[in-house]
Amino acid sequence: MSWATALWDQLENLDKHTQWGIDFLEKYAKFVKERMEIEQTYVKQLRNLAKKFCSKQSKEDEPKFSCCLSFHAILSELNDYAGHREVIAQELGDKLHGDLMKYSQELKNDRKQYLQDWRKAQQHIEQQLKQMESDKKKFEREWKEAEKLQLRYEKLEIDMNVTKADVEKAKNQLSAQLQVVEENKEEYIIQLQSFNEEQRKYFNVTLVQICQKLQEMDERRSVTLGESYKSLGQLEQRVSPAISKCFQGMVNAGKSVDAKKDSEMVVQLYKSGLETPGDYCFEDFSQVSARTRTSSACTINGPKLDGVLPDRKIILGKARIKLSQWKRQVQ
Amino acid sequence: MSWATALWDQLENLDKHTQWGIDFLEKYAKFVKERMEIEQTYVKQLRNLAKKFCSKQSKEDEPKFSCCLSFHAILSELNDYAGHREVIAQELGDKLHGDLMKYSQELKNDRKQYLQDWRKAQQHIEQQLKQMESDKKKFEREWKEAEKLQLRYEKLEIDMNVTKADVEKAKNQLSAQLQVVEENKEEYIIQLQSFNEEQRKYFNVTLVQICQKLQEMDERRSVTLGESYKSLGQLEQRVSPAISKCFQGMVNAGKSVDAKKDSEMVVQLYKSGLETPGDYCFEDFSQVSARTRTSSACTINGPKLDGVLPDRKIILGKARIKLSQWKRQVQ
Repeated sequence: MSWATALWDQLENLDKHTQWGIDFLEKYAKFVKERMEIEQTYVKQLRNLAKKFCSKQSKEDEPKFSCCLSFHAILSELNDYAGHREVIAQELGDKLHGDLMKYSQELKNDRKQYLQDWRKAQQHIEQQLKQMESDKKKFEREWKEAEKLQLRYEKLEIDMNVTKADVEKAKNQLSAQLQVVEENKEEYIIQLQSFNEEQRKYFNVTLVQICQKLQEMDERRSVTLGESYKSLGQLEQRVSPAISKCFQGMVNAGKSVDAKKDSEMVVQLYKSGLETPGDYCFEDFSQVSARTRTSSACTINGPKLDGVLPDRKIILGKARIKLSQWKRQVQ
Repeated sequence: MSWATALWDQLENLDKHTQWGIDFLEKYAKFVKERMEIEQTYVKQLRNLAKKFCSKQSKEDEPKFSCCLSFHAILSELNDYAGHREVIAQELGDKLHGDLMKYSQELKNDRKQYLQDWRKAQQHIEQQLKQMESDKKKFEREWKEAEKLQLRYEKLEIDMNVTKADVEKAKNQLSAQLQVVEENKEEYIIQLQSFNEEQRKYFNVTLVQICQKLQEMDERRSVTLGESYKSLGQLEQRVSPAISKCFQGMVNAGKSVDAKKDSEMVVQLYKSGLETPGDYCFEDFSQVSARTRTSSACTINGPKLDGVLPDRKIILGKARIKLSQWKRQVQ
């Protein structure tokens, strides 16, 4: 049912309802703004977190273990995730909230205009009604005066004690008054015709147009709200695949950690290349002179013949050091 | 390459590296904790937002327009979204961070134990070496003493001026010293054999075991980090379908807004059921007495015959009121 048909007499309620509609829209806009601010804070905190742990890492100049590289990848994915949520914050702010505030201003202007038009048209028809009723009353007043003159004339006519002149005078007065009545009746009729015409125009044209505009405006407000609600979900859905990629990136970073490779890297970082020391050799001071004394061949077979035996290092064919030497090296 | 083979001489570097490993793990645990705190703040803010706009609505007791119902649905979906992100915060806290801290403590204890074992074994082998070298030096010292006695004896033997008794005495002294040399040599040999055996055990068993444990511990740390990195992404992936449903719910809420239904609801809320007033009737006072005066049939045909015409309301067959009357009703 159209507002023009059903609510032609509900100006005050439509004033109230359309004001509520604007208030509701602005309340929703406020919700969108606060939703955006939450998202902005979230983005800022995520960014700061990624930055904090990223910069700390580079300062320490960590080795390129896969567990470090993957953590860097995690931080990078987190930063990307923050970036996608920032897109959401921006759309909530610029697009949704911005559009709502702009639309709310339009709505206020339109509403003001339509209700003003209604009130103006209403005032005009009321003035017309007043004029018509005033004309009607004047006609009634004059008619009552004519009735009085009629009664007086009828009384004089049957009264045997009055002069003909008095009767004639009363008759003339009545005749003059009936003339006044007829004039006032004509004025009343013209005003009544004019008013009825204006009233028909008011109800059938003016009010119909205003009510239609108010109804269209209010329906457009509902449609706008519906579209904005949809956008709340849709903007999340749009960035959702990109966000999924970030999380998959974190899973991949986890999978890239190679514990065996990392422990091999520790070997490459710290290995001296030295082999573990072999047995210490027996040095038989009792079989050689102090000047030509040499180690024995690392077997303990008691006193040996004097002579230069091959060096233990040469026997083993590799660079070997004694426990006492590597102790000095590492300390 | 195993740490036992390549890093047998890198106790200090492995001490440093495993400490770095624990520090890195704890830094990552700190990252997880801060990530969780960001999520907690986000959840709290989303919850507060939903609550704030929900309670305001019920207070105002808004009519059940579809745009209001859909906004309620949006708030409910937002609250659900916050709930799903709360699950993420809880998993980050209880599972990821909690497990990391527990594991870090185990790691610290194991590391301490392994490095302690290594140092203890190293100290023991050093003591053994010291003992062996002290025995060797004693043998050398005694041998040098024997050499001096040998030279003296040889000098006396070719000196024609010394007595046979002196020569015999020197020979006995040499003989006694050679006995001492032989005893010290035996001690040195025994200590050398023992040391070499201990040293082989140290390098081939003790150090291999400790290095293996350290390597396993360090590899387990990398594996644990990798698993935790994966979880960071996986826990988001697990709630992702539920979160998608929230966003689809918002889209559905937007689609449910029915502008036509809402404007019809305004009609149902405010309609008075009255029809617009018809034309005002001509009241001809001049044709009736003041006591029996009645409206004319709303046509302006000049003076009428006296008589009671059907009421305008009855003619139109509907409840109609005059403009002046509905004006009073609505004000």
